[in-house]
Amino acid sequence: MIRMSELECVFCGRSYSFNPFYSFCPDCDEPLLFPIIKKKLKIDPRKGLSLEKFSKFLPLTEIHSGLSLGEGGTPLTRLIRLFPENGSLQVFVKNETLNPTGSFKDRGTAVAVQKAVELGLARIGTVSTGNMASSTAAYGAKAGLKTHVLVKEDISSEKLLSTAAHDPLIVKVKGDYGALFYKSFDLAKKHKIYFMNSVDPLRIEGYKLVGLEIFFQMGQIPPDFVFVPTSSAGHLIGLMKSFIELKQQGRSDRMPIFVGVQAKGCSPLARAFASNRQKFTRLKKVSTIAHAISNPDPPGGNIALKWIREHDGLIIDVTDNEILAAQHLLSTKEGVFCLPSSATTLAGLIKLMNKKILKPDCRSVLVITGTGLKSLKTVRLKKELQKITTLDGLDSCLATCSG
Amino acid sequence: MIRMSELECVFCGRSYSFNPFYSFCPDCDEPLLFPIIKKKLKIDPRKGLSLEKFSKFLPLTEIHSGLSLGEGGTPLTRLIRLFPENGSLQVFVKNETLNPTGSFKDRGTAVAVQKAVELGLARIGTVSTGNMASSTAAYGAKAGLKTHVLVKEDISSEKLLSTAAHDPLIVKVKGDYGALFYKSFDLAKKHKIYFMNSVDPLRIEGYKLVGLEIFFQMGQIPPDFVFVPTSSAGHLIGLMKSFIELKQQGRSDRMPIFVGVQAKGCSPLARAFASNRQKFTRLKKVSTIAHAISNPDPPGGNIALKWIREHDGLIIDVTDNEILAAQHLLSTKEGVFCLPSSATTLAGLIKLMNKKILKPDCRSVLVITGTGLKSLKTVRLKKELQKITTLDGLDSCLATCSG
Repeated sequence: MIRMSELECVFCGRSYSFNPFYSFCPDCDEPLLFPIIKKKLKIDPRKGLSLEKFSKFLPLTEIHSGLSLGEGGTPLTRLIRLFPENGSLQVFVKNETLNPTGSFKDRGTAVAVQKAVELGLARIGTVSTGNMASSTAAYGAKAGLKTHVLVKEDISSEKLLSTAAHDPLIVKVKGDYGALFYKSFDLAKKHKIYFMNSVDPLRIEGYKLVGLEIFFQMGQIPPDFVFVPTSSAGHLIGLMKSFIELKQQGRSDRMPIFVGVQAKGCSPLARAFASNRQKFTRLKKVSTIAHAISNPDPPGGNIALKWIREHDGLIIDVTDNEILAAQHLLSTKEGVFCLPSSATTLAGLIKLMNKKILKPDCRSVLVITGTGLKSLKTVRLKKELQKITTLDGLDSCLATCSG
Repeated sequence: MIRMSELECVFCGRSYSFNPFYSFCPDCDEPLLFPIIKKKLKIDPRKGLSLEKFSKFLPLTEIHSGLSLGEGGTPLTRLIRLFPENGSLQVFVKNETLNPTGSFKDRGTAVAVQKAVELGLARIGTVSTGNMASSTAAYGAKAGLKTHVLVKEDISSEKLLSTAAHDPLIVKVKGDYGALFYKSFDLAKKHKIYFMNSVDPLRIEGYKLVGLEIFFQMGQIPPDFVFVPTSSAGHLIGLMKSFIELKQQGRSDRMPIFVGVQAKGCSPLARAFASNRQKFTRLKKVSTIAHAISNPDPPGGNIALKWIREHDGLIIDVTDNEILAAQHLLSTKEGVFCLPSSATTLAGLIKLMNKKILKPDCRSVLVITGTGLKSLKTVRLKKELQKITTLDGLDSCLATCSG
């Protein structure tokens, strides 16, 4: 049974009561997490919702299905054109773009909103410029909570509109965006707003369900490698936590090798990992096409570095060109249209392949985190694939084009 | 066992061999369908993919899971804020936006592409301006087929890009778009392109799976009402076919009441239904915000009219204002951000509620067909929900806004 009100610091080991307005260790300044669950927990595969199937893994007293938008249960499909079935590598995508608002963020928001309602809170919020903003706005609407979304002043209209559709309060904040993350917690208690930001402990519990689904979709055998786009590191931490718990509970005899992938233009964790440092250094300037993973000061970074070291994982980076090439491969060869940030996973796998780190016959999972529909600007129109004709000219056009 | 190569005309009853290049009755000019399956078929609920669970219902010799993008298994969630749990109406959404390319079209494309590969065809195509274009391009890419997408000359860049991401050949065709639908079949055989258009018989078989899922998600009791956005009518025909088969196979003792909903600015079927005509009249001019259902000459229209009459259904229309109001209710009260075309379902339900056609305690399903991410232009930014401030000003901003 989970102690549902207790959080733990991964670094100093101290315990603290869960507080929806602040969940960082007062001594270490690191995010607090719910403890690893060591007791073997029951799973109910007959349930429709992932939240219900794996409810015992979650620090909630009950699941209110009426708050769900139907997140989870996303497909695990094999990439058979890039990695043919007669080849030596088995590569799968866990396609988190098939969540209600098009990204993995829904996994975390779904759990955090359950907690907000359980606690009788009326206000929630988030600091985000993209996927987390629209996710929190959608779940806040479904739960009837007043939702506050703090965004950058120069947010693109595309991102703004998919959030604004749900009528949250949107506050554009001028000034340092990294500071805004911490500022939100300063104001949370006063205004009774539960800011479910990137490394919120309930959010991370929600991300565990992605890992649990992968494990069961693969026949209760963990994959050899799991590639995860890494920014704030909340998603990576959640995924690792699920497999740590599966191992501790005796359901699995080993962990996958986790590979956190960052964009080279914003890779504080890959840099720290490469130089064997325990803590990362905040970057002053970042520049990458993968906007969804361009956090220069990832709040979960040090936990990720610690766990990746302890469990023989890797944190690597890939260039924007590698990212765009991978994004193009996924959409044109495998029909998976994702954000550049998600394509870092394939770029990372190709990098490890080229370095001969992936053994033959190994099974890898790429976690695809967000839909390409939210970043249409990265699509290049190819002249040779665009024709224009009349009804009468169609016949000869098809003859030429198909030839 | 399905006779996998035989199609039937719903009007004259004659049978024809399946032909991937043309599937209309030579006498009646109406789309041919696979016959109703009357023998009780096995279902395998343990399978992961919907295609595999319900494979016996499909006219395919086998399912090649490697061609799937993980379509189906979409959530059925209850609208508890618009229709509270202590109220008399139970309303659910079947959320088809959680398909790989964000719309129900993936259900049909998935099945048609299986058939294309089974037949050894190398080329597929579609005539579409929106959801069907990106769906066909994505599945074509996954299967390694050369894909031809015929679009209107003035297609929006938004729609173009989500299709172009998969590198199909895109042909912009000047001239009458309705004529292009039939023109594609004239050229199909010559160029060996399987045009899987809106009422393709395999596509319609794919749409059956939406209905089968609804039936099992509701505990094998059919809902009382099913609301479906209706344009070419392929989706409505597929959904009705699934419940006709469930009844003929003795799995269900009744059919739901199907309600096809059209936009008032393009409602050839609602008009024919209202005046009790057996066949619809092609419209010359159409004008509606619901672009995804603005077909003035729906190829499946006469079958839909026939089946709706035979099974006590309805075809109704709703105004653009009703559609936009319903879209807003779904996104702000229930967290479901969909296309205007999808919101016709809620608008239609409200219309029938006001006319007292929905009985107390009845269970209704709204089929939500496409994601709002493909139509961000319909989102209105509300001034009172948009604030701008500095880090220092955030405190007082939240105090005012939350007050």
